[in-house]
This record gives sequence, structure tokens and C-alpha cells, in this order.
Amino acid sequence: YTLSTKSMLEEYDVPRNFSMVWPGVYRSSFPAKANFPYLKMLKLKTILTLIPEKYPQSNVEFMQSNGIQHIQIGIAANKEPFVEVPLDKITQAVSIILDKRNHPILIHCNKGKHRTGCIVGCLRKIQKWTLCNVFDEYRRFSYPKERVLDEQVIELWEETQLLDMAKENGWVR
Amino acid sequence: YTLSTKSMLEEYDVPRNFSMVWPGVYRSSFPAKANFPYLKMLKLKTILTLIPEKYPQSNVEFMQSNGIQHIQIGIAANKEPFVEVPLDKITQAVSIILDKRNHPILIHCNKGKHRTGCIVGCLRKIQKWTLCNVFDEYRRFSYPKERVLDEQVIELWEETQLLDMAKENGWVR
Repeated sequence: YTLSTKSMLEEYDVPRNFSMVWPGVYRSSFPAKANFPYLKMLKLKTILTLIPEKYPQSNVEFMQSNGIQHIQIGIAANKEPFVEVPLDKITQAVSIILDKRNHPILIHCNKGKHRTGCIVGCLRKIQKWTLCNVFDEYRRFSYPKERVLDEQVIELWEETQLLDMAKENGWVR
Repeated sequence: YTLSTKSMLEEYDVPRNFSMVWPGVYRSSFPAKANFPYLKMLKLKTILTLIPEKYPQSNVEFMQSNGIQHIQIGIAANKEPFVEVPLDKITQAVSIILDKRNHPILIHCNKGKHRTGCIVGCLRKIQKWTLCNVFDEYRRFSYPKERVLDEQVIELWEETQLLDMAKENGWVR
């Protein structure tokens, strides 16, 4: 191989539980150093972190050197009966995703299962998916650790409060 | 509610196992009548069907009335040791997805698990995902019916034969 052929064949380590949610919106588990080349290729404008813990220095440096803004909305893990997910933080996170000026955006927590799953589930309600469809997707990403409490958060969260913003940004007609 | 508010709140029945694969590429299970309003909203240009059976008349009419071209590449279900997935049909299907003139495109089989999972897995190889990442995604959609034989098809299929086409269409640099 010449160098350029070699480079063409190099492989990406994609973050676990990575997926496109919608054009301009991606979801994943916590991005590790090994995933940075892949994330760089996505030309992200924003990373939305849903855990409250301090962000690792290597991730901060990766974002700075690639001009990626970091928004952190710390949500504690949803473990009943001790912790309740604050619905206003969910609203805040969803509104950041709705705002297309932040795209392309990556949403992540630790495993990309629960907190990320809740936020994506709420976004799907704005996109007018039936709850049955929303839970089907939630479970695909959280298996084998699905939490009914997360599904309850998705069901209880009131999407009408963001419908104006969703319309302004072309998410619904 | 006024009529327009009511219409704004109506919900979509999304096909089971629906997901974005990449901008312009969607995957799902077999689209039922109940899913047509959602598919219409996606403004599809192409539906790529991976099963050999005759397409239902209602689906044919839906496509005709929405200007969607239908491409059918019949692949028999992969059930060892009786049936082998023909690698040349996989190449044919992947090349249709690579061709951006066919976008937005929906790929489907019956459950959106195996045949669709194989084709998406091969596309990920072109996108230079590691096999570990490819199988992680394959299993997310095929659970609890993952087939090692499908993973073998993905691993054995040779992506270099489509790299020129992938470059021409902007999939790889």
C-alpha cells in the first residue's frame, strides 16, 4: 500500500451505542479518546453532556481544538425511589437539541442508554411518534437495562411547551 | 381544539425497527398501511425492498401516488445450513444505497433485523467502522434473534469493490 491507500483503509472506532437520531443530531455513550477521529469526521458544532460529573481534560481539549461548544446539563442517574429526573432539565436539554444553530450536535451520557434515551424519547414526542414507537426505540438502546421509570419520565414530560420552538426550527409544520 | 391544532397533535405510527442510518438513508421493518403517513412525511425518493415476495398492492399504490421508485432485490432469509446469502446481491443493494440520486431511501425487509441488518452492516464497512462497532449495531436491531451467519456475511463481504463508487458519492474521502 501507498500511504494514501493505507489511510483510506483505516478504520474508525465509533462510540458504543452511537446512532443518528435525525439529520444533525447524534446520540452515543461517553466519547472516549479512541472515538475522537470519528467525532472529528462528523464536524460537530456542539456536544451536549447529560451527566453532572466534571468532563475529562482530554475531551475538553478535543473540543477546543475542533471548535466544538460544550453544553453540560447534569442529570443524576434515574434510580427509583431515590432520585427523580427533573423535568425542567429535560425541557432545557430538548430545547438545545431543537435549536438548529447548535447542529450538528452529539448527545451523550455514560452508556447512552437512560438519560440519553429519555431525551431522545422526548424529542420523538415532539416529532409526534406514538408512545409505543418511542418505547420501542428506548428499549433498543437501553437493553438489557430498560427502566420503566425512564419510560414514565418520557410519558409525563409535556411536549406542548416546546411546540412553538419546534415549529420555528422546522421540526413540525 | 381548532382543526389545525388537532392536526398538529396527531401522532405518527412509525414502522417497527425504524431508524436513520445516515442522512438520506432510513431502515425499518416491512411498511404497513398505518405507517404510510410517516413515510410520506419523509419525502422518500426510493424504497429498497430486500425480500423476494410480491409487494402488496396497497404499498404499490402508495408509492405510485407519492412518486416513489421501487427497487426490489429479493434475498431469501439466511437460515443455515439451507440458504446462503448471495454476496453479489448484497453488493447490488449497497450500491443502490451509495448512489445519492436515490436519496432519501428506505431499506426494509420483513422485520428490519437480518437482511436489512446485513446491508447496513456492509454500508458501515464502507464507512470504515470497525467490525466490533458494526456487530454492536447489527445486534441492537436483531435482538433477540441475532445470527452469527449474518455477521459472517458482513465480515466476508468485500467493501473495496465499491470504494470508487463510495468516493464519487462523497461517502469516503
